[in-house]
Amino acid sequence: MIKIVILGAGNVASHMFKAFHASKTVSVVQWYNRNLKTIDKHKNKVDVTDDLSALIDADVYILAISDDAIESLSEQLPFENKLVVHTSGSSSLYAVDKKQNRGVFYPLQTFSKSANIDFKDVPICIESLKKEDLPILKQLAEAIGSKFHKVNSDQRQALHLAAVFVNNFTNQLYRVAHEITESQGAEFDILKPLIKETANKIETLSPYLAQTGPALRNDKKTIKRHLKQLENKHHKAIYNLLTESIKKTYGR
Amino acid sequence: MIKIVILGAGNVASHMFKAFHASKTVSVVQWYNRNLKTIDKHKNKVDVTDDLSALIDADVYILAISDDAIESLSEQLPFENKLVVHTSGSSSLYAVDKKQNRGVFYPLQTFSKSANIDFKDVPICIESLKKEDLPILKQLAEAIGSKFHKVNSDQRQALHLAAVFVNNFTNQLYRVAHEITESQGAEFDILKPLIKETANKIETLSPYLAQTGPALRNDKKTIKRHLKQLENKHHKAIYNLLTESIKKTYGR
Repeated sequence: MIKIVILGAGNVASHMFKAFHASKTVSVVQWYNRNLKTIDKHKNKVDVTDDLSALIDADVYILAISDDAIESLSEQLPFENKLVVHTSGSSSLYAVDKKQNRGVFYPLQTFSKSANIDFKDVPICIESLKKEDLPILKQLAEAIGSKFHKVNSDQRQALHLAAVFVNNFTNQLYRVAHEITESQGAEFDILKPLIKETANKIETLSPYLAQTGPALRNDKKTIKRHLKQLENKHHKAIYNLLTESIKKTYGR
Repeated sequence: MIKIVILGAGNVASHMFKAFHASKTVSVVQWYNRNLKTIDKHKNKVDVTDDLSALIDADVYILAISDDAIESLSEQLPFENKLVVHTSGSSSLYAVDKKQNRGVFYPLQTFSKSANIDFKDVPICIESLKKEDLPILKQLAEAIGSKFHKVNSDQRQALHLAAVFVNNFTNQLYRVAHEITESQGAEFDILKPLIKETANKIETLSPYLAQTGPALRNDKKTIKRHLKQLENKHHKAIYNLLTESIKKTYGR
């Protein structure tokens, strides 16, 4: 049984607690949060604490806390030479204090408080300063059914940045589409099968090969009509920039 | 049995032929294309022709041809007062020649030549000048398992424009993400579960409520780090514009 302590109580921490608590090969021996109220309701399932000096012995300490808090919290840990990992996509491996064995356990997925997460759909990017710490991180990923990927810091940070494009920015395009359809009283829901197919298509085709549409064809007539339809300046700017980007990609 | 003639031989025409040919309530009585070679291989299943004057009698004529060809082809049809529909998202209902009963049968989906299409995932936007022509268009949609949506021209054109955002532009964001990950030797595939979840999330949440990430939080530190990571000017411009767009949406 691998013993872990979870520190933090945000979305990632809460989903991880749930998943590890349900696992058969990992035991969450303690849950720390600076505000005990947030995690107090779990005290029948796990030892909860808001006192760093009361942290108990474990194989791995998971800092599922905000990027800015990693350095100071890891500095305050009352022990040395333990495997301490953060869960951030963008923070350096070295954000963890140097008196610990440093590592990263970054789940690359979007977490909402309400929605249930199946960790089999959550790739975990793992990294450790000491090579001998990798196997236990792999075991942690496997314990919750996740695929793991050994990446270095540059790769992890590239993935984190790329995730902003495919998640936050894509979602904003959905939002713009919602505004466009609503402005004419059309149902946004009619677009949902297309949204799904766009995501599914790249399972078998690279994004490069999956592209279609007026920008790819450099169909000036349609592009001009679309720009005329767009009343919102902001939407127009997005249309222009992404049309140019597609034309550039395909040398149009 | 509803009798239809399909005109054209592109992706939409080919997928529609296949779907209608398999249906039990619609009979494709003829397939026209100006170049007979493209459709000749189907002549054991359907009467094929490249001669407009040889078009036979049917209940509906489906012009699954490029936008620019709708006017001239419909003008050349050797009959009058028949239900003639085009399949374009952006062309006017009035692109069909006025001596016919005009209509639209617009499948809102991305079609590739190779990929199989299940029409239950293809919403059909229908429109007709004469109200009495709507029921037969509904029956056509139902015959291939599609949901139909009665929309007016403004709504259809808004959907077509919105489709460019959720399909072509989203796919271009996938492409940029691919370039970013590749530049660091990270696997693009690690992003695929996130891409799917981003699309799935809006089944239950509006795009407005589904948003997360540094732009939403106005997390200046992360935004600054991301911009520093982006070496490609073009990617930087997209990052800036969509970050601004998100901030604007949420009043940040």
